[in-house]
Formats: sequence, structure tokens, C-alpha cells
Amino acid sequence: MSKVKVVEVGVRDGLQNESEIIPTQTKYTLIKKLSEAGLKYIEVGAYVSPKWVPQMAGSDQLVRRVYKDQSTGKLPKAAVYSALVPNVYGMKQAMETPIKEIAIFGSASESFSQRNINCSISESFERFQVVVEMAKKQKIKVRGYLSMAFGCPYEGRVPQARVAKLVEKLYKLGVYEVSIGDTIGIATPKQVRQLVPKLDKAVGLKNVAMHFHDTRGTALANVLASLDLGVRTFDSSVGGLGGCPYAKGASGNLGTEDLVYMLHGMGYKTGVDVEKLVAIRNWIQKQVGHTLPSHVGRSGIIKGLP
Amino acid sequence: MSKVKVVEVGVRDGLQNESEIIPTQTKYTLIKKLSEAGLKYIEVGAYVSPKWVPQMAGSDQLVRRVYKDQSTGKLPKAAVYSALVPNVYGMKQAMETPIKEIAIFGSASESFSQRNINCSISESFERFQVVVEMAKKQKIKVRGYLSMAFGCPYEGRVPQARVAKLVEKLYKLGVYEVSIGDTIGIATPKQVRQLVPKLDKAVGLKNVAMHFHDTRGTALANVLASLDLGVRTFDSSVGGLGGCPYAKGASGNLGTEDLVYMLHGMGYKTGVDVEKLVAIRNWIQKQVGHTLPSHVGRSGIIKGLP
Repeated sequence: MSKVKVVEVGVRDGLQNESEIIPTQTKYTLIKKLSEAGLKYIEVGAYVSPKWVPQMAGSDQLVRRVYKDQSTGKLPKAAVYSALVPNVYGMKQAMETPIKEIAIFGSASESFSQRNINCSISESFERFQVVVEMAKKQKIKVRGYLSMAFGCPYEGRVPQARVAKLVEKLYKLGVYEVSIGDTIGIATPKQVRQLVPKLDKAVGLKNVAMHFHDTRGTALANVLASLDLGVRTFDSSVGGLGGCPYAKGASGNLGTEDLVYMLHGMGYKTGVDVEKLVAIRNWIQKQVGHTLPSHVGRSGIIKGLP
Repeated sequence: MSKVKVVEVGVRDGLQNESEIIPTQTKYTLIKKLSEAGLKYIEVGAYVSPKWVPQMAGSDQLVRRVYKDQSTGKLPKAAVYSALVPNVYGMKQAMETPIKEIAIFGSASESFSQRNINCSISESFERFQVVVEMAKKQKIKVRGYLSMAFGCPYEGRVPQARVAKLVEKLYKLGVYEVSIGDTIGIATPKQVRQLVPKLDKAVGLKNVAMHFHDTRGTALANVLASLDLGVRTFDSSVGGLGGCPYAKGASGNLGTEDLVYMLHGMGYKTGVDVEKLVAIRNWIQKQVGHTLPSHVGRSGIIKGLP
């Protein structure tokens, strides 16, 4: 099985961690360019209060425009545009649009759950249940994020048995794919090789995505370890947008162009055009106003290599 | 076999590609700090003309001081300090010092050989033979570099059969370890998995080091692929010193702290202290005057993780 699904999280997860506020029109242009580069799964925004996350203001308007343009063929019909929904309030807003996929965001760390979404893991699952029930009735697909799955800056190691259990719980709620986040970029392939078989046993790898951060340079090594074990879905962010919120100046999200470069070099098919990604990275870098940390964007590619 | 040998190339290969000229005293301090961090193999300079490589001026003086301080116990006795020797002229200079190990530098690409060392691959081997013979008589160990082993910016793909043949040739000359360079950082684990068994067949993996560049983010994925196949020696450069001479602003040498972070996270032993490496990276960054590209130096480590 040589096809790999790439989920582009730069527009939401990436920009959310950029300090410069990016206009909704610029986000739309970014989404259009990413779609034209062949990305079929793009998270475009979040139904959160602009008071809490100013960068996500205008997400509702953006979702409406994207779905309208998809219906008229201005954006590719085959693409899936999703948005993050943290609670019932956000879900109600989402349901007023023709959105076909949403994402929920949980944590494998109790401390991070409290700090990030102001409730315990158990309470977050109660919220998720209501949101997923609402989504099911509208035939909206739900993707799940499980953050801090390899460790947490507040409580250290996170037991893998807990991660596998929470993934299973999300799947049983009705989440079709769980994205396993190394949110602070501490994992090495050893931890990945220990966790992935547990995820396979819990929900099957076709329902698992891996979401690695390149904070310590290990993202692609962790992708390799996952690929070898059969994972075929990865999250990434064009240019490595987002940085690392836990270490100023450090890399965060794995760059989409780095991921796709390695996958293509290994013979995997993604449907994504790396050269276009490099051009998008150069363009969005100007909009955010600082050097983006991914590698292939800076180095470019050499025709015919590897 | 859980021990991995790390060869620090930052002082020579790294600084050689830095535009700011670093004083010999600073280089000495760097070597001392690296030794104190547990690095046992450090390339400290090159016997080349300062007219051609101004950054390497003072290498002779540096080698003399390092060996003197090692003899008096100011530097660890167990450490190996080597220097690059391009030709008979450099070898004569080296032989006037108590140096115990030298390195020779060749290429797997005809075009790069011509541009970098002004001769064909075949002519370079004639030079090597004389240098290695001189070294043997003095019981000086010789390490070999084979650059552009995965591809060349001038001639594209480099046949793996040629690489294996050249490695065998170097080994037969009397080189005890050949370092295989992905000089422009284009390799992905697929190419590594194809090449390493050929190297094993040619000279045995105990005589092979892998020298990856992180130009496209794949360095640690390539290290992982190599480790899995039994390679136990890797070159790296503290802070990722050196950048990429072929793509301005891009990463070059794999950062030693990134390499050691992943190795330790996977249970391998290196004898190197990552926290000390991070401190060295922060210090040498001030000396070179720009942000160094490695990851762990920027992010730091989190105690107890992974």
C-alpha cells in the first residue's frame, strides 16, 4: 500500500500559533493554493471564541466561502475542508454551514487538558459525546486529536496504555480517525514503535493518523517508524507554520514539504506537488513575517534527486 | 550492540563553511568543551593552504596545542583528535606534529571531484595512496570521506555500485573507516536502505560511518534506517555548524545534539552529555554570529522525556 494521506493543519493549527494576525482573505488564498498543490484534507479554521483565539476570528465566514466555492468548482470537489469544534456552542455554529467534517481536540495528559481546555480528560469526553452526537445526526464526519500522546511538559511521561484507551474511547464515540499528537516534539522512534502496535490493536491503523512535531529534529524519523508499521496518514503544516508554543524560536509542526519530500523519495504517493508547496511556503512566509522552520522550503529541491 | 560512536565534525567541516573567521583560541575552547561533553572523536582542523581556506589557518598550531594538552591531561587521553590532509604537502606538515589520526576527502561524483579538489576521482586516489603510505609508516590512522554518495548537484544521481566500489578501494588503501556523505542532504531512507547492505558487503559495517545532512529534514530518518541495518558510527556537527554551502540559509550538517538526543531516546549509549552540547551550541552560536540550524539546541530538552 503505497498511498499516504496527508492532512494539512497549517491554516488552523499552524496559524493559530503565529503571533501576527492573518486576514481571512489571506487564509482563503492559502487554502486555495494548498488545494491546487493537491492537498485533499485541509483544516481551515476553528469555531472558538475570537476573544480566546483572535487568530481564528472569521473562521465561520471562511468555512462558508470555501464550501460555496467548492460547490461551484472554484475549489476541488474531492477536497475535504474541516474545522475544529471545541464544544456545543461551536457545533451549533458549524451546523449552520454546509460543513462536512469537524475535528475535536482532546489530550492524553490531565494537566494539559486542564490548562488547554479547562476541564479534566473525563469531562472533555462528556463534551465530545454531545458534539459527536450532533454531528452524527447531520452526517458530519468527526476527526479526533489526542494531544501530548508521548509526554507532557507539565507531567512528563504519559502512559501508552492510557493513550491507547483514550484512542479507543474516541473511536467508539464515533470519531473516524484519531490523530496522535507528539505536541512538544519529544518522541523518538523507540516510543513510536512501542505505541503504534497498541493503537493498531485498539482501533486499527486505518483509523489512526500520526501528528509529529519537529521540535527536536525527530519528526521524519518518527514518520519512518510509523510507515514501517503500517501507518498511512500523517498531519503536517506547510512551511512548518506554527512554531513551537512551548519553546520560543523552536520548530513545531512537521513541514508538509518535508513530509512529502521524504514520502516521494521513498516511493509513496501523496498526490501533492512539492514544488508548489515550496512556492506556497515562500509566499506564506512573507505574510507571517518571519522565517518558517521547515527544511525543504529553505533548501528547495534538486530535479531528479533523490 | 547499543553503543554508538559519534564523530564531531563541527570544528573542521562545520566552521569551514561559516563565513565569519573564528580565532584559533575560540576553536581550542570549542574542542575543549566538546571533549568535556564526552565526545571522543573530534576533527580539529585541516592541513590546507590558508589562501584557499582561510578558516583553517592556524590548524597546525591548534593540532600541536591539542596534542600537548592531551599529553599533560588537560584534554582527555582517550579522545582522538584528527585533521584533514588533502595531499603530500599537508601530510608532511602533519607528520611534524604528534598527530595520531588524519582524514582524506574524496568524492563519489566526478564533477564534484573536479570542482572541489581539482582532479578526477582516479587522480584523487593516486594522491590518497601516497598520503596513506606516509601515514602507515608513522602509524597514523587514516579515516576517509566519500562525499556526494547519494547524489550530486552537478550530475544528479550517483550509482550505488560506484559508491560501494570506491569505499572498498579506500578500505584497501588502508583507510580504517569510510564516512559516507549525503553532502547535499537529498537522501531518504529508501536510498539508505539500498546502499547500506552494499557497504556492508564491500567492507563490513564496522568500517563504515554515515554522514548525513539535514538540508531536507531527513537526517535523523536516515540515521534510523542506518541504525536498523547495523551502522554504529555517525558524523555530526554541534549546533549543525556549517549550514549548507549549496543552499543559502538551509541546514547542512546534522546537529550533534539532535543525533545524540534521538540515540539516547532510543536507548543507545554515546557517552555524550546532551545538556552540555546545548550549552556549547548556545556559546558557539554567539561566536559565529547567527542562529544555528539544529533543533535540540533551540528547543532544549525536558528532563525525564522521552
